[in-house]
Formats: sequence, C-alpha cells, structure tokens
Amino acid sequence: MSTFQHIKPAGKAQFKDRHTTKAAELLTPYTEGSKGDVAIIGAPLSKPSISHSGASFAPDVIRRCLNSFTTYNIEEETDISSRKIIDFGDITMHPTSIEDCHQRIYQSTKEVAQAQAAPLTIILGGDHSITTSTVKAIKETKGTVGIIQLDAHHDLRNTEDGGPTNGTPFRRLIEEGHLKGEHLIQIGIRNYANAKAYHDYAIENGVTVYTMKDVRQRAIAELIQSALSQLESKVDTIYLSVDMDVLDQAYAPGCPAIGPGGMDPDTLAEAVQQAIKHPKVQTMDIVEIDPTLDTRDMTSRIASLLIINSLVK
Amino acid sequence: MSTFQHIKPAGKAQFKDRHTTKAAELLTPYTEGSKGDVAIIGAPLSKPSISHSGASFAPDVIRRCLNSFTTYNIEEETDISSRKIIDFGDITMHPTSIEDCHQRIYQSTKEVAQAQAAPLTIILGGDHSITTSTVKAIKETKGTVGIIQLDAHHDLRNTEDGGPTNGTPFRRLIEEGHLKGEHLIQIGIRNYANAKAYHDYAIENGVTVYTMKDVRQRAIAELIQSALSQLESKVDTIYLSVDMDVLDQAYAPGCPAIGPGGMDPDTLAEAVQQAIKHPKVQTMDIVEIDPTLDTRDMTSRIASLLIINSLVK
Amino acid sequence: MSTFQHIKPAGKAQFKDRHTTKAAELLTPYTEGSKGDVAIIGAPLSKPSISHSGASFAPDVIRRCLNSFTTYNIEEETDISSRKIIDFGDITMHPTSIEDCHQRIYQSTKEVAQAQAAPLTIILGGDHSITTSTVKAIKETKGTVGIIQLDAHHDLRNTEDGGPTNGTPFRRLIEEGHLKGEHLIQIGIRNYANAKAYHDYAIENGVTVYTMKDVRQRAIAELIQSALSQLESKVDTIYLSVDMDVLDQAYAPGCPAIGPGGMDPDTLAEAVQQAIKHPKVQTMDIVEIDPTLDTRDMTSRIASLLIINSLVK
Amino acid sequence: MSTFQHIKPAGKAQFKDRHTTKAAELLTPYTEGSKGDVAIIGAPLSKPSISHSGASFAPDVIRRCLNSFTTYNIEEETDISSRKIIDFGDITMHPTSIEDCHQRIYQSTKEVAQAQAAPLTIILGGDHSITTSTVKAIKETKGTVGIIQLDAHHDLRNTEDGGPTNGTPFRRLIEEGHLKGEHLIQIGIRNYANAKAYHDYAIENGVTVYTMKDVRQRAIAELIQSALSQLESKVDTIYLSVDMDVLDQAYAPGCPAIGPGGMDPDTLAEAVQQAIKHPKVQTMDIVEIDPTLDTRDMTSRIASLLIINSLVK
Amino acid sequence: MSTFQHIKPAGKAQFKDRHTTKAAELLTPYTEGSKGDVAIIGAPLSKPSISHSGASFAPDVIRRCLNSFTTYNIEEETDISSRKIIDFGDITMHPTSIEDCHQRIYQSTKEVAQAQAAPLTIILGGDHSITTSTVKAIKETKGTVGIIQLDAHHDLRNTEDGGPTNGTPFRRLIEEGHLKGEHLIQIGIRNYANAKAYHDYAIENGVTVYTMKDVRQRAIAELIQSALSQLESKVDTIYLSVDMDVLDQAYAPGCPAIGPGGMDPDTLAEAVQQAIKHPKVQTMDIVEIDPTLDTRDMTSRIASLLIINSLVK
Amino acid sequence: MSTFQHIKPAGKAQFKDRHTTKAAELLTPYTEGSKGDVAIIGAPLSKPSISHSGASFAPDVIRRCLNSFTTYNIEEETDISSRKIIDFGDITMHPTSIEDCHQRIYQSTKEVAQAQAAPLTIILGGDHSITTSTVKAIKETKGTVGIIQLDAHHDLRNTEDGGPTNGTPFRRLIEEGHLKGEHLIQIGIRNYANAKAYHDYAIENGVTVYTMKDVRQRAIAELIQSALSQLESKVDTIYLSVDMDVLDQAYAPGCPAIGPGGMDPDTLAEAVQQAIKHPKVQTMDIVEIDPTLDTRDMTSRIASLLIINSLVK
Repeated sequence: MSTFQHIKPAGKAQFKDRHTTKAAELLTPYTEGSKGDVAIIGAPLSKPSISHSGASFAPDVIRRCLNSFTTYNIEEETDISSRKIIDFGDITMHPTSIEDCHQRIYQSTKEVAQAQAAPLTIILGGDHSITTSTVKAIKETKGTVGIIQLDAHHDLRNTEDGGPTNGTPFRRLIEEGHLKGEHLIQIGIRNYANAKAYHDYAIENGVTVYTMKDVRQRAIAELIQSALSQLESKVDTIYLSVDMDVLDQAYAPGCPAIGPGGMDPDTLAEAVQQAIKHPKVQTMDIVEIDPTLDTRDMTSRIASLLIINSLVK
Repeated sequence: MSTFQHIKPAGKAQFKDRHTTKAAELLTPYTEGSKGDVAIIGAPLSKPSISHSGASFAPDVIRRCLNSFTTYNIEEETDISSRKIIDFGDITMHPTSIEDCHQRIYQSTKEVAQAQAAPLTIILGGDHSITTSTVKAIKETKGTVGIIQLDAHHDLRNTEDGGPTNGTPFRRLIEEGHLKGEHLIQIGIRNYANAKAYHDYAIENGVTVYTMKDVRQRAIAELIQSALSQLESKVDTIYLSVDMDVLDQAYAPGCPAIGPGGMDPDTLAEAVQQAIKHPKVQTMDIVEIDPTLDTRDMTSRIASLLIINSLVK
Repeated sequence: MSTFQHIKPAGKAQFKDRHTTKAAELLTPYTEGSKGDVAIIGAPLSKPSISHSGASFAPDVIRRCLNSFTTYNIEEETDISSRKIIDFGDITMHPTSIEDCHQRIYQSTKEVAQAQAAPLTIILGGDHSITTSTVKAIKETKGTVGIIQLDAHHDLRNTEDGGPTNGTPFRRLIEEGHLKGEHLIQIGIRNYANAKAYHDYAIENGVTVYTMKDVRQRAIAELIQSALSQLESKVDTIYLSVDMDVLDQAYAPGCPAIGPGGMDPDTLAEAVQQAIKHPKVQTMDIVEIDPTLDTRDMTSRIASLLIINSLVK
Repeated sequence: MSTFQHIKPAGKAQFKDRHTTKAAELLTPYTEGSKGDVAIIGAPLSKPSISHSGASFAPDVIRRCLNSFTTYNIEEETDISSRKIIDFGDITMHPTSIEDCHQRIYQSTKEVAQAQAAPLTIILGGDHSITTSTVKAIKETKGTVGIIQLDAHHDLRNTEDGGPTNGTPFRRLIEEGHLKGEHLIQIGIRNYANAKAYHDYAIENGVTVYTMKDVRQRAIAELIQSALSQLESKVDTIYLSVDMDVLDQAYAPGCPAIGPGGMDPDTLAEAVQQAIKHPKVQTMDIVEIDPTLDTRDMTSRIASLLIINSLVK
Repeated sequence: MSTFQHIKPAGKAQFKDRHTTKAAELLTPYTEGSKGDVAIIGAPLSKPSISHSGASFAPDVIRRCLNSFTTYNIEEETDISSRKIIDFGDITMHPTSIEDCHQRIYQSTKEVAQAQAAPLTIILGGDHSITTSTVKAIKETKGTVGIIQLDAHHDLRNTEDGGPTNGTPFRRLIEEGHLKGEHLIQIGIRNYANAKAYHDYAIENGVTVYTMKDVRQRAIAELIQSALSQLESKVDTIYLSVDMDVLDQAYAPGCPAIGPGGMDPDTLAEAVQQAIKHPKVQTMDIVEIDPTLDTRDMTSRIASLLIINSLVK
Repeated sequence: MSTFQHIKPAGKAQFKDRHTTKAAELLTPYTEGSKGDVAIIGAPLSKPSISHSGASFAPDVIRRCLNSFTTYNIEEETDISSRKIIDFGDITMHPTSIEDCHQRIYQSTKEVAQAQAAPLTIILGGDHSITTSTVKAIKETKGTVGIIQLDAHHDLRNTEDGGPTNGTPFRRLIEEGHLKGEHLIQIGIRNYANAKAYHDYAIENGVTVYTMKDVRQRAIAELIQSALSQLESKVDTIYLSVDMDVLDQAYAPGCPAIGPGGMDPDTLAEAVQQAIKHPKVQTMDIVEIDPTLDTRDMTSRIASLLIINSLVK
C-alpha cells in the first residue's frame, strides 16, 4: 500500500495525531513467548444468562473503547505508552453446547495462565457464568484461590433450577471443591437483589459479605484492605471478579440487571486499583456488560478504564 | 395444564429459582376483606398533562419492575416474603372526559381507603393532576390531611389557564378548601423551575417550602423530621406525594419535566423511608413517570424500590 | 372487585368497545378436552441461533399483537368472533441445556398434537432450530410428514460446525430419518443467502427448491398448488414452516437475518392462506422474529395476521 | 441585523441555494384578506385518541417536512414557486377539556372557511376525532357535505363507550344529522381492523365501503371517479378525509394504528390528486400521524407531499 | 495462536460453517500487482454535505454487510467464491480542508485506476461531492467519460452558494470541462426534489433526464439500454454513479435526503446489473448512505448486494 | 390573526400560563443599539471536529431548552423576568470551506463584541475549534485575554496533523501570538484523555493545569478563585471556555468525547457562577454538545441553565 500517499487499509483509523498514543495501541496480539504488563482474553459467552443477554459482544466493545483513552496519566504524570496489553483474542464458543463453552473457557484460561504472559490476566466476559471455569483453571495453575467479588448479587444460586447460569458461579466453585467459602469476599451486595436463602448459604459457608450499606458507611479502601489482609496469608493467588452491575444504574446502564442503589465508578476504580497493586492479585474478570442495552458504550468505557488503570499496577 | 411437564401458561415467567421470591410475587389482587401491608391502586391518567405525557403507562411498568427485586433486605437482614401488597388494580379512565377521570379517581380512592386493606395505600400515577382527587378522597375518609410533597415544582398554578392540569393539584386543594396551606410542606423545589407568582402564592398561603438548596445544605432526615413534627399534631392523616421529577435528570430520565440540579435516589429513598414510618403517614402517591421517555425503566425501577421499602414501615 | 365501579384488575385493557372483539380475545387457555379452530403453543427458544437472537420473546409479542386486530373479515364479510384459538401456553426452556430445550419442545409438541385440540396447530418460535423437534413429534403422532418451507434459507447446514443451530433443522430431520428429501419443498430461497454446498445437498436429496426468482416469475398460488399436489398423495400430514425472513427487509425488519430481495407480506399471506385450506396441512410454525430488533412490532403483527387468517381455514 | 455580513436570525436555515425554493417557503401566514392556492390550519389534538397518541405534534412536523421538497414538478415541468399556502397557524387547545377543544376546532374551521383564503383548505390533525368538528363547520359554511374517506377503519364506533374518540367521527356526524350515510364513501377499509357491528352500521346507513380488496382489484382511479360521480350531484361540497393509516405499515410507520395489508403511497397520492381536481372538493384533512412513533418523519413527509401535490389542483 | 485450540484473534468471526463462504471473504487487500474481478476503494467524506451527514461511515459498514451474504447465486446457480474483490482500503481525509480531501480522492482514484486491478472499480462514498474528483481521475486515466447517474436529484446546483457540496458534482464536471452535458444521463429524478433552474440547466446542457415517471412507465431495462446505446459510441468509458436516494424512503431509510416516490431495490439492482455488463462500464460509485440514520443497515445491505451482483459482470 | 379567538401562529407554544415567564422569553433578537444583560451568538460549526460531530445543532437546541426553565430563582428569591438575553442569532457557515467558517466566526464575534450589547457575551458552539476565532476577536476588541478553560482535554494538539480541528484551539492561540501560555488556566483535565506531549507543551508554555484530581481534592471555588487572582491583574479581559465534556458521561451524555471520571453539573455551575461574577469575565463559550447523541437534551439543558445562571452575574 506504500505507493499510495493518501490510502490506508480498511478498518484503520482515519485520523492519527503523531503525539498521541491511544490505549488501544497497547494491544499486542499474543504470540508464543510474548510478555507484557497485562494479558487479556475474551470469553464472549452469554447464553447461560437467565435473562436475554448480549454480554457476548462485550470483549469487542471494550477493546474498541480503549480507543477513547490515551496512555497518559496526568494525575500521576505517568506515560504508559510503553506498557503492553498482550491480547490473546477471544475464546471461540460452541453455538449450541453451553457445557462445551464452559469447558473451552476452562481450558483456554488454563493455557493463557500457563503462558505467563503478564503479571495480571484480565478475562473479559461474557456473563458471570464464566467465572467457575476461569477460577478452576487458575486454581489448577496457581494453587489455592481467594476471590474478591465486586457485585450487587451473591451469585450463589442453586444449580438445580437451571444449571450453570450466570447466577451460580461461586456456588459451583464451592460445591465442586475449588473454593472455600472463607476464601470468598463479596463487596457491594445490594438490598432486595438477592434471596435470603443465598445470603444464608453465604454465611453458612463462611463467605464474607459487605453490602452497599457497608460501602456507604466505610471507606472502600478499608474494605479492600480488609479483604486483602484476610486472604493474603491463606491463599496462593487472589482473583478479582468485577460484575459491573455493582455500579448504580445511572452509571452502568449497559448491565442486564440494572438497579438503583449501587456504587459509583470512582469508588469501583479505587477498589480495583488498590486490589491489583497487591502481588497476589494475578487474575481479574470484568463481566455482565451487554453492549446492546448500553447508552453510548458508557459501561464498556468504564471497563476499558479499569484495564488501563491496571497497567500502573 | 398439569398434564404437561414443560408447558406454562402464556405470560408467566420462564425461569423460577425455588429459593427466590420476586417482589412482584407479593402482589395480591384485592378481594373483599383482603388485608395486607401496603395497598396499591393505579391511576393511569396523563391526558391532563400540560405537555405530552405517557405517564398513564407507569402503573403497569412499576408493577413489572417489581420483578427486578427480591424480597430480601440484606442490609437489615429482613425477609419480607410474607408481606402482602394488596393490588386493587387500575382505575379505568374515560377516554374523552378528563373531568370524569378525576371523578373516578376520587371515587375509587375513597372506596379503596374505605376498604382499609393496609396501613399504607400507594397510588401510582399518572400525572400529578390525580392528587387533587386522591387527597379529597382521603380527607373525606380519614379527616384533616397534611401533605409532604417531594417535588421540583410547586404545582400551585392558576387553573384559569388550562383547568385541572398536572401543574395545579395543590392549588385546587387549597382553593376548594380541602387543604390548608400550612398543612402543605414542599421539599426539593428547584431553581428556575417555577414562577415567582406561585412561590408568592405558597408563602401567602402558609405553605412551607424547602428548596434543593435546603436539601443540599441540611440533612434530608432533618427536613422530613421537621415536616412530620410540624404536621403530626395538626392533622389527622399525612399524605406523602412523590413527584419523581424531584430527582436529577441523570437519575430519573423518564420524567416529563427533567432537569439538572435535583435530588439523588438515595436521598429520596431515605426521605420516603423515614416519612412512612410515622403512623400518621397512611397514603402516598408516586407520579410523573413517563415510561415511553425513560431509559431502561430506570425511573420506574426507583419507584418500585420505594414501594418495596414501604413494606418495612 | 365487583364492588368498585371504575376499577379493573391490573393488566387488563383500559378501553373496551362493546361491539368490538379483539382477536386476542379468541385466545382460550387450554384445559383438558378443549376444542378450538386453531391451537397455538409457544416455543420461546433462541439460544441455538448462530447469531445473537431475541426470538424467544416472539410468542408473547405475537399474542399481544392479536390485540391490534379485530375478528371481522370485511373482505369475506365473515365474523370469526366465535372461533377459538386454544392457547397451550409456552414451553418452559432449560436455561443452560439446549439439548434439553429441544427435547422439551419435542415432548410438548407431541403432547399438544395428541390433545387434538384443533385441526391446525401453530407453533410460535423461537428460532428455526425448533422445527427438528416439532416435526419429529408430529411424525410420531400423525405419520409421514411433508414440509412446505417458506424461507430465504435452506437451513440444511452441516451440524459438525455448531450442532443443532437454527441453520440445520431440515438437515437434521433428513439425516435422522424423520423426513425424506422429496417430502421437503422450499419456497422463497434467496440469492447469496446460502452456500452452494447446501443447495447441492438439497438437490442430491430430492428437495424441491423454488427461489425468489421463481416467486417473482410465477404466481405464488401456482407454487403452493404444485407443492400441495406433490405432497398430498405421498405423506400423511403436511407441515408448513414459515421463517419470517422469507420477507423482504422493508416489510420484516424484525428478523435476525434481514436482507433485500424478499417476498412481500401479501404474497406470504396468500401462500399461507392457500396452504392451510388443504386438509392435510395440520401443523405450522412461525419462526425467526426477534422483537428486540423490530420496528414497532411490524414483523410480529404480520405473524399475528397469519394466525388470524388461519381461522378461516 | 443587516450590518452583520455572516449572521442570520436564530431559527432560519443555514444554507440557501439561490435558485431553489423550498415548498416551506410557500407558507404565508394568514392576514386578513390573504388569498392563496391552498389554506392550511393545524388542529393539534390527540387527547381524544383511544390509545396514547402524539398526533398533536403532526402539524409542526408536516410543516417542517415541507423543507424537504422543492417547488418544481419535473414530471409535469411545472414550477409552483408562485403558489401560496396560506397558513392560518394552529388552533390552540384546552389542556383539560376535550369538549372545549372540539368546539374550538369547530369554531376555528368555520372562521377559516369563511375567510375564503383559498379554493382548498387542508386541516392538519391531530387524530381523527377532529373531523366531526371540521365537517360540521364546513357544512354550516358551504352546505351539504359529501365525504370521501381514505382509511383503514370505518371510524363509526358507538360513542357510549368513550365519547367523541378518534374512532367515532363519522358516526357522530351521521347521528347528529350533519351527514347522510349515502354521502359517505370509505376507501381502503382493512380486514380484521373493524368490528362487524360497524360494517353493519355502515351498510344500514347507506355508506359506500370499498375495502383494500377493492383497491387491489380495481384501479384506484376508478374508485375515486365512482365516488366523485356518486357525490357530485347530491352535495354542495366534498370533504376528503385522509387517515394516513390507510397506508401499509411499511410506508407509514408513524401512524398509531399500523398494520400490514394497506395501500402504498403512490396509490394514495394518485387518489388525492384525482379527487382534489374536482371543483367540489374544497376541504381535506390529514390525520393520525404520531411523529413520536415515526421513522425519520417518513409519514409526515408523505403528508407534506400530499399538500404540495394539492397546489397543482 | 496455533497452540490454543479454542482461541481466535480478536475481531475475527466466532462462527465458521465449513461450507459457507461469506462475500466479505472475497475482499483481498490490494498489494502491488493484485488482480481481481472488482476493485473497491472507500472515499469516506461527508463534510461537504449541505446537511449533517455521516456518510463517511458507509465504506466500513458496506464492507461489514458483505458478511450478510454468501457467494452462491442460486438463481443463476453460480458460485462466485473464487472471485476476488480487490480492496484498496480507504482514502484518508484531511480533517479541516475539504479542498484537500477532494484532491486526495482525485489523486487516489487515479492511482487506483492506473493500478488496473480489476475490470470494474467501485468507489464507496461518502457523499456525492466525491464524484467530481473521481470522474476527473477516470477521465485522465481512461479518456472521455459518459455518466449514467441513478439519483433522485440532478446534483447540478450552482457552486457560488456553498462551493463543491454534494449538490454540485455534475455541474462542476461540466463547468470544469471534464464532462459534456450530452454524456450525462440521469435516471430516477424525482418530483419536487430539484429546482427548476437545475432542470433547465440540464436541458440547456444536453443532459438526458429520465424522471421517476419515466421509470414507472417504461421498463428500467429499456432506459438503461437507451442510455448505454446513447453513450457507447461517444465516450471511452462509462461511469455509473449510484446515489442511493434514488430509492424510496421505505427501502433506503439510511439516505440523508429520503422521501417517498422513489425506486424499489429490485429495479435498482436490475439497472446496475444490466449496466455493468457493458464492457465500457468500468467505474461505479455508491454514495449518500448515512449509517447513523439507517434502520438495521438496510441501505448498506442493498449497497453490498450491488457490489456482489457486480461480480457476475 | 387577532380576529380568531383560538388560533395561534404556527411554531408558537400551545400553552401559556399567565404568571410564568419561560427563560426563552428573555431572548430578544438584536437590533442596532440593543442593550441587555447577556448577549448570545451561535457558532454552529462542527465540521472541523476530528470525529463525526453534530455540535452544529447545539445553538438551536440550547435556545429551545431555555423553554424548560422559568425566570424565578427560588434559592435567591430573585426574579429575572426583566433581564434580557440579546440574541444575535447564528453565524452562517460556509458548507465547504472550514477556513472561511473560522474567518466568519472571527469577524462576527468581533462585530458582536463591538456592539457592546451586554456585559457578558456567550458564544454557543459548535465544537471547540471556534475558540481560536472568538478569542482572537475578543483580543482585538478588548485587549489582552486570559482564559479559564473548563475541559477534560488540553486542546493543545499540533496542527500539522489535521489543521485547525477541535483539538487545537489553545495551541493555535498561543502559536499565533494571541495568547500567552501563562494566561491560560485549564481546569478539569482528565486522566488518560490527553497525550503526554500536550501536557508537556502546557507546562513548557506556562499554562496552569488543574486535573480532576485537583477538582476532587480541593473545592472548585478555590480553584476558580486562584485562577481569577492569577489573571485579573495581568489581562484586560477574561474569557471562560466551557467544554461540556468536562462533565462526567453520566451527566453529559451528549458530548462527542464522553468518559467516566468527570465533574458533576453542580460543580460546573458553581465554577461558572463564581467566574462570571468577576467584572473582567466578559466572554464565555459553551462548546462540544452534539444533540444527535444526547439523551433527552440533558446536556443542552445544563448549558441552558448556565446561561440563565449568568443573568444574575
């Protein structure tokens, strides 16, 4: 194409400012042996969702929203243009076997973890059902897993009523022996958003539960610190699971299960920032964004910013 | 239908988690003698609105949004699955006589109040014009009425310029002798959202007015406490009128008269929660939600949560 | 509720004209032994779709659109207000096992067919993957099945590449021995909408294929007549499968796989009308409407009219 | 403003091509004694509609859509830039008294008719309820009225069930003695869009009814000619009432009561063109466009073209 | 990526049917010396448009819509999976100099034409202003140009009132001496869509004008044949310029200047098909699609089909 | 029109409450010698924007949103109904020469400034590229200019990569010698929203930069006070440039470059209120609202309120 002065390949951006690096430019497709600061892998699965969900579109949209950010952190006066986001691409899903999909997520997450491409791996859902598969893979790769879950919901539903839906990931992990209840810390659980039975299940299994009332009354930093302290000596690795519906509906209009009374994005960003600085926090997922329901990709933009923030771990 | 294992009646939910009670399941159609914790009645009228309004769709949407909430209050560790919302249904409206509609609302509210089905009755508008009819009915049933109005607007317009529109309910109550000005307390009145003449009218008639500046500068709890104290000894019953446009446009995109500078939903919820705990607060309305303008029923979701919150009165 | 003059149960229509019967009023929930003119059953399944599809919402929307039609056929001067649409309701789907969903559709269709509630049963999809299950059930109940398929696509894809998706129903029927190729007649197949391999498969298996060119060049009545003549002596029962994407995108904006060059609704209605008059046409499906993509339910409105038309069989 | 070279008053078009006259430029506000080729008056009333309708926005939108057309008829090689559309403005509506609104429409139409500003007056609805008022006014001004109604519906509903709604205009005219049944000719009446009782009423009262089947089977020109012949010797003036829902939903997505099986815009335009050439056709209305439901003002654009076409009467 | 069984690069399609070739797979990025059946080049420029236009997004969307079509022409039983669409990519535009943009289009079209990559080059606009630049480039490469323009508008506006807008391309070509009026044939020109002055200009300059009335009254094949016959002996090369607003608004909702009374897509497809079979038709453009205004990319889908159809030239 | 009791001119509001003055009624078209409290002028230019922008529609929408506010400031108990907003109208733009557009903005702003119609002039963009022209005009009229810029972005991009885009206004002012870096104070600059090179440029040129972190950690009043103190003795006039994307995406969904982490509207209003009280703040612009992307004109409503607030300067 070099012979043509004013033609660019289809799909490339029209405008390029010579001094500006877009965060999307940090994306580097994985090839064997690649090393970077963060690795991402898409798990575009939302057929297990209880309600109709287009969360399978989120990995592409979150990547695209990285174009809305530059690499310069003016608040810290840090330029991250030399950081690398190793992009493993997306896990291919089986159109009609959800069991197979979960198996592929498990296998692929394991392969990605084994590739050790970066100190932090971010899995982009997809719905929350993916987390059983990813945590299982992480456990087999890195040892005992502790989880800090930012979520409006327990996601501890019984599996008799629908199998491995997006309401069950942590229940399945506990029941299948991949996770101890006391290694699970839930932050942001919301009023009238969960059944009593599942709160009871959480308590009976030693799960630590911080509600939105806790978030409102105590500094988020304190809750995260408490969670990290509780887990760090007991587990080999910490997994941060970010269900975007922990945010209030005014800030995250693109989550399937929106509602009032949630967190604001600054609080979520602070929580994530603080958590990933801990050396044992090595895996993170971002789930439950349905771009077909969103307003101007606002929810995905927040997700993209969480990824970028993670580069200054 | 019992002979078919996998068939459900049309209109019923596809998925049922055995441990989860949706708030919508608390709805119990009224039959003679029914008793419950809260009674609701829809007043789907918006033709009196000055601007084009689909607020008549709100009762159905608010009921439907009760499906987005469970019955478990995790912050108080209270399960309300045994509470009952007695649903009287909707008042049928005359397609072309607004006068007749207001009369029907008056008569039906009176009948509902007389049925004494619950300690708190919630009327779901519709636009704010319904409140003249409902308050009149309450007064005739329960005696002198005091009103706490959460609203961006005075709703004290003259009636010469359009008759009983949604801008006039409290003016009509005062002029028709159903309400004393000193028994009306307005909270959340917003800048540049009302005419001076109507503020003057309020002051001249002894109406208590708290602006958004008051809300921002003083705790909402203090304003509500002040309102309750002011009214409790003077009136027989207190009516809480919630115009959802008291909320900021970012939180309540579904109100016809949106604007910046309003309340946030946590503040509104706190105000309502506190007020309805008072034994004299026996009636409440929720008005001015137009679902055709809303984003993902956000405004109706907040209304549904206000209903649910009222069950722990 | 009888004591209240102006109150109606929640969910019932506000306005009732005493002389008008809405087609939706013909819906009669099935109870054992019910008999009617047409039976309907919803198969709200779209998770097997290759692309993201909300076709699972269609049965509810199609039923609701019956409210947009009356029971009076002015062109024939026939009032069908005494006809009955026996409504079996919807098949409940398993949230995470598509295999189970297909099995439930098979079992439920069989039960519905055995109930013999009406001379014509209409299955409301859902996506086209349901047709393997429904035809199998019909075959086991009524004997050899011939199919007239109105569709832009062959739906004869291989199943290795995704299992029982919405691209495979007729292939699976043939491969599993439930259908002979010569008993399948496809009408409306569109240019550049299918792979050559699947046209080859159709031809090799004796399937009759009429493209849109055939539709444009010959009267639809002639094609349908030819299809009926071809099948009537060879099969015990004829199944009419209507994939709404046989329509042009301008008329059916709510199909997942829209495109130009399709049929207009009058032609489709004529085809369906003519076919169902044949005594051997006893089952019909209407599939591939995604109400979340539609413009003002236009596509579902056409589907509703097809149901109504079928009442003058 | 003349001193500023590059500033124009707010609200004026940015771009002006010196050789192009937009049809909107033909609009001339009425002042006493104004004469033009067509007169228009808006009747922005839709509160009488049975279903929620924003048809009150149509007069403004139809006027604005006149900006999408020029004044040159290339098919006839006729420039109509010297024609005048006398714009009487809009009738002001009472916000809460529909009876008063209808009275104002009656009075204003009479005043407009008496002003004799043009050989053809076009009333822009609003919903179809306005036609009782306008026809009554025309009758009192011009004598016996015959009506050619292009409509999917009879609009002959009883008035006990809702008063003067948009389903009743012609019934009210007949019952109140302003119109004889034999002076009403309905064209485009659609299947399953009306109750038998109202077809019976039409027939019993001598109304001529042409269904869409008639439209499809006979040339529209023949139907219109037949209607004109039938009326011209019996009435003093002919009123053309155009309910835009006579069009198919694919062409007129902005009508409240859309459906398949309707007319296409060329047929409608031909019908209107032919009718208004008749010297006794002196009044016309265009009703039932709800711009809040439309796609890119398509339905209003067709209405605007009908107005423009009428200038070459 | 080969080591991972179930991972694909970001941006690649999730589902692949082994027997199906999507038309988008025929796209082959140009490299020096590439030869194919059709060449495409995007000219994503819409800032010159008189009205706000997002036509600059069209090249990307049209390419993406090629994924909605396969390579099998069932009507002709022809598989075009071995054809190649040489994709030159998009011309980069200057953000603030429209003059520079037009110059780049001119230069790039010339370079593309000189590359002689295919017998037919299709330029994807962008708005119609691009055609002055492209035709000029073609003329300098291939000699005297004749143009068949499918369009609702003359696009012969004066340039004093706005410079090289999308209303002027053919005027500029004539005035700048690149095109003789008698070498321009316009088909589909619509009533009340053009100023008389520009029709006069057309006639005075020998331009052949076929209106929509001509299209309705004569077979499109006859008009195209007439155009080809008229041009073939007089020019060296024929340029087909397809302004999508030649289509009726019901079929092409995504054009900035939509309106009723236009062509249907089958007629347009037939016209294009017939024209490009002529050996002198070597260049074509498709302009005036604004994807931000479209309904489900319907207009771009038609454009994609025109490209595919051109492969069986 | 006076002879008709119930008719109003087209385009005028339907409903008028005799005691309510809408803020839009304060708009007074400029005529020579007009004096008022604030002057406004629209600069509807967005073609220079790097990304597709409809900001050219903003002046009209902001004016229209003035209808959503009254003239009564209840918090200060001040009625502003006697204040005047002198409306100069909109600058006409050249459709294809952006250079010419900028020149017209320069010239017109100068003429408006020289007219001295009000102590504060507000220029309604349009995109931010207009500010080079307006500031240049102000400098030539009023002397040395200091700028307080409320913005998420530096807008100090190099001009080689696109000319005078909306990313360059302050760079151009500095480079062309119209502004000293030390006379520019930027408030609200956001993380990952700017290139390091432009922050470096700011620092090297003496620009004062307050990030969102500064806004969060210090009272906005303190930052504005600091800015005013810094500038007041050094410049002749202060220009307040309000890029609405300084707001968080949840509050300003209508800005082209939305993102999380921005200011809330109360903070912005406070900043503007405080700044314009300073006698040297004589000009202000409000830019980067694209009404085609907004939700219910929320962003324009905030802009309208900023204008109204400025009347109590």
